Amino acid sequence: MSKEKCRIGVVAPASRMSPEVAVRVLALAGSLYPGRTPEIVFHPQCFASHGHFAGDDETRTRAFLEIANDASYDAVWFGRGGYGSCRMVEAAMSGLTESSRRKAYIGYSDAGLLLAALYRAGFEAVAHGPVAQDILRDDGDAAVGRALAWMVDRAPETLEPTVSSARKTAAFNMTVLSHLLGTPLQPDLDGHVLMLEEVGEAMYRIDRSLFHITSNAGIRRVSGIMLGRCNAITPNEPDFGMNEEDIARYWCRRAGIPWLGRADIGHDADNKIVPFGPLRTAEPAQVAPIERARLTPP
Amino acid sequence: MSKEKCRIGVVAPASRMSPEVAVRVLALAGSLYPGRTPEIVFHPQCFASHGHFAGDDETRTRAFLEIANDASYDAVWFGRGGYGSCRMVEAAMSGLTESSRRKAYIGYSDAGLLLAALYRAGFEAVAHGPVAQDILRDDGDAAVGRALAWMVDRAPETLEPTVSSARKTAAFNMTVLSHLLGTPLQPDLDGHVLMLEEVGEAMYRIDRSLFHITSNAGIRRVSGIMLGRCNAITPNEPDFGMNEEDIARYWCRRAGIPWLGRADIGHDADNKIVPFGPLRTAEPAQVAPIERARLTPP
Repeated sequence: MSKEKCRIGVVAPASRMSPEVAVRVLALAGSLYPGRTPEIVFHPQCFASHGHFAGDDETRTRAFLEIANDASYDAVWFGRGGYGSCRMVEAAMSGLTESSRRKAYIGYSDAGLLLAALYRAGFEAVAHGPVAQDILRDDGDAAVGRALAWMVDRAPETLEPTVSSARKTAAFNMTVLSHLLGTPLQPDLDGHVLMLEEVGEAMYRIDRSLFHITSNAGIRRVSGIMLGRCNAITPNEPDFGMNEEDIARYWCRRAGIPWLGRADIGHDADNKIVPFGPLRTAEPAQVAPIERARLTPP
Repeated sequence: MSKEKCRIGVVAPASRMSPEVAVRVLALAGSLYPGRTPEIVFHPQCFASHGHFAGDDETRTRAFLEIANDASYDAVWFGRGGYGSCRMVEAAMSGLTESSRRKAYIGYSDAGLLLAALYRAGFEAVAHGPVAQDILRDDGDAAVGRALAWMVDRAPETLEPTVSSARKTAAFNMTVLSHLLGTPLQPDLDGHVLMLEEVGEAMYRIDRSLFHITSNAGIRRVSGIMLGRCNAITPNEPDFGMNEEDIARYWCRRAGIPWLGRADIGHDADNKIVPFGPLRTAEPAQVAPIERARLTPP
């Protein structure tokens, strides 16, 4: 890349983002990268509203394509998860042009549908990691700083600790992965370490998602499963009798999938970056990083 | 069949049934069929408890096989849905013997996993219909009377009104069908009218389930989709902007699946019987029905 500044475009393929998020993210980026502040462009679609969604299906598709197909952007950053990517992913993928391949894509939760589709289509810089909306969490600056450090510098300290160039990885929200199994979006995860996290579901639903995921023939070809955090688990009536790790171990054992322990991902500020595929040591978005950016504000 | 009375075995492959259900069902059966009361045997496993489930996985599997493989039973009636069939279905199916094929199976909701597996395995008398636990609903006697009338007499008035010998049908809870897509349990529904119902989910989850179901290549070979009732829909934040019928029509249109209107099924006392496959006009369980049983008590 020949330009001095990393240019990031933010779109919201699912639920609406609040304008406050943009203000806070821009302020944080300025404080983290004095002298080489990345240019972060929030597409106006992020703040649109149409029922459940950040604009109707066509508006969200168009916004995604405007950023993804614009060669001046280095990264497409998903502003928020929520729900709705499944409604626009097909049109979005069919509208991508060659310049969309030369940039990074980062997000998680509902955006996992887009990550899956992009990875399946051979995109090389797809990552599971914080969204802009995470700045509203306690210690949310750390989450957003981590996403920026990956987009700007591919900073290795942003990575989930077990990620290495020696193995392929992928990460998903369980419910999202469950809902793309058996569809044209399902990526080939043969030989990958698959990391799974969940939020806001009852224990029986976690069990059901893991039944589904580990029963799929394609998923059974992963090299192993790691369990991220399952946050804000809702009450189970009666008590389920197992915790999420018991459940993950149970289904891995039944499916003959190696259980590889816990992963440092989840719906929280500690959510680390998991690149899809092998860790690539390619050029970061900025040619000459002047100094290692601080990951948290003063 | 050569015996005079229909013999029905009740098992609970998922959640626990209350003993009160058995008492009330037996009383109802006696009042509906004076002189030829079906023998209804509640396996003790129905009342067992193990965390979320009506006994542990092995207990539920064994109980199912004891009834299914016993030639003296004409029907296996699932006592309740809830959650848990996915944990025992594989072992259950692998333990079935020849005599299991000569009987009827009826249930819905979570039991849909077993219905799917049985239908896929070529069982000919598999039906989506009320469970014993439905007697606890308002007007629950009507639901249970309907299940009995199907098991005892294959009474045509118990059927969902569009069911006919001219077309194949299948029915599922949306969430349950979604969770078996892409697994070895997924049945071939080529050319079937697929009826779908839901309970206790937010509108965005109904949308997500229908995205998943209609995106599956196997499901796209159905002859059409009918929407049952979506009961006890939980709040959507913000308002979703479409109702369940709008959503079903939307996904049918996108998938090129014919929309065939509403189906008379759901998590309620009006839930009609939907046989899997073509409607068979085979011998009912009882050779000579003496009189048409009343479907509701006096």
